[in-house]
Amino acid sequence: MQTQLSNPIGVFDSGVGGLTVVRALMERLPFENIIYFGDTARVPYGVKSIETIALYAREITQFLLQQQVKLLIVACNTMAAVAYQVIQDLSPVPVLDVISAGARTAAAVTRVKYVGVIGTPATINSNAYARAIHRYDSEIRIFSQACPLFVPLVEEGWLDHMVTRLTAQEYLKPVLCHEIDTLVLGCTHYPLLKPLLQEVAGEGIQLVDSAEAMAEQTAAVLSEKNLWNPERVLPDYRFYVTDVPLRFQSIGERFLGRTLSNVRVIKW
Amino acid sequence: MQTQLSNPIGVFDSGVGGLTVVRALMERLPFENIIYFGDTARVPYGVKSIETIALYAREITQFLLQQQVKLLIVACNTMAAVAYQVIQDLSPVPVLDVISAGARTAAAVTRVKYVGVIGTPATINSNAYARAIHRYDSEIRIFSQACPLFVPLVEEGWLDHMVTRLTAQEYLKPVLCHEIDTLVLGCTHYPLLKPLLQEVAGEGIQLVDSAEAMAEQTAAVLSEKNLWNPERVLPDYRFYVTDVPLRFQSIGERFLGRTLSNVRVIKW
Repeated sequence: MQTQLSNPIGVFDSGVGGLTVVRALMERLPFENIIYFGDTARVPYGVKSIETIALYAREITQFLLQQQVKLLIVACNTMAAVAYQVIQDLSPVPVLDVISAGARTAAAVTRVKYVGVIGTPATINSNAYARAIHRYDSEIRIFSQACPLFVPLVEEGWLDHMVTRLTAQEYLKPVLCHEIDTLVLGCTHYPLLKPLLQEVAGEGIQLVDSAEAMAEQTAAVLSEKNLWNPERVLPDYRFYVTDVPLRFQSIGERFLGRTLSNVRVIKW
Repeated sequence: MQTQLSNPIGVFDSGVGGLTVVRALMERLPFENIIYFGDTARVPYGVKSIETIALYAREITQFLLQQQVKLLIVACNTMAAVAYQVIQDLSPVPVLDVISAGARTAAAVTRVKYVGVIGTPATINSNAYARAIHRYDSEIRIFSQACPLFVPLVEEGWLDHMVTRLTAQEYLKPVLCHEIDTLVLGCTHYPLLKPLLQEVAGEGIQLVDSAEAMAEQTAAVLSEKNLWNPERVLPDYRFYVTDVPLRFQSIGERFLGRTLSNVRVIKW
């Protein structure tokens, strides 16, 4: 099968969080067509069992492959943590994921080799970031912390609120006491908390935004595999969701950083 | 069809929150058999569209009817708010719901006829509590507030935490400024926040716990329809869930107030 270079990049997520990855891709790869799939009817994945997450990941992968994507990006940390292999086994096109991207950047950035990782309970319990970081440098010590309240706080829009600051102080305390110099934001919702988290963590700590790391790695893979779209026209962006939840538009636009149009609902 | 009096009461919810209703039923109706269904694979419903919630409600109703329940209790405020009619149309047995139960108690309790209602965004946006309260007394003025962070705060176990207190102060401020004397806890998670909410609201305000109101109304309907189980043996409790999420056991037992056993997983 010959891959069409103008075929879209498929990005998928359990909900709207992956739109932070789409935003980073739009900025870094301005001529690539993108199809986004957000499983908004079944979000959040972060508290579900591994079997259920793997089943959902398989369904979404099949859907995006039918749309002729040339590359698959797993923008959901939870799916990347527990279902990456399932997705790769299904896919004839390259599969990239936010965890590898964030891990690679973290390993490159840390000097003291003490790295903090924050994410949903499922991501943290899976230990996937630790394994991925150790693939790049096995000497790095990793201190991780599940932060289940950050997603609802971001969706509430309390990005610079005293409640969010107190919550961040409480969650980060056990991580910060280890004198890390790098903190991986291991959930696509967290880039919106970057200013607040930087303040709580202190200036000496480098935050690794996995959406930006993902866009960088995608650019590298497009070069390596000669998959860049040669067309220099306005790209096509399509957004598939399994439900249009309350406040979807406003939350989605906060993540994407621009107007969200061309949204189609798939009912399963 | 002759209803067997020893048949179980079917209680259903989008997740584990409805276990607060089961707890109240166990205390109020100690000889009734109970089947609980928690749709833990698809929780939370509170942010999904009305169509999706109605579809799920239909599936669960059919499942419980197959289990020969003698009475159906919709313990999920969100389902009661947007899918009550769908459930009732399907069911040959009586259907009770937390919203009617809470509304009836609120109407009976308020003296100044200013009532506050808090719940998930879907419950509050549906305006179902206002409609239900007005069926009992159309003169009551209702002030409602969506509190999307309360569910994750309860599931995090921060029942008496500064973050929860600050969040409650912020959410309740616009409601409390109307000098209400009654506050309906319109979500099955909220009974666990009762002590904190009572403190934030102040002693002059009567909290209506919809789980307790539900148990009272169930007792009344069992009497009215002659449906009490005459057997005086240890009742049978069965719990069906669609997934066993992380921390399910500990969160479930916090809601139920006792050991959670006899849990079966249904895969759809």
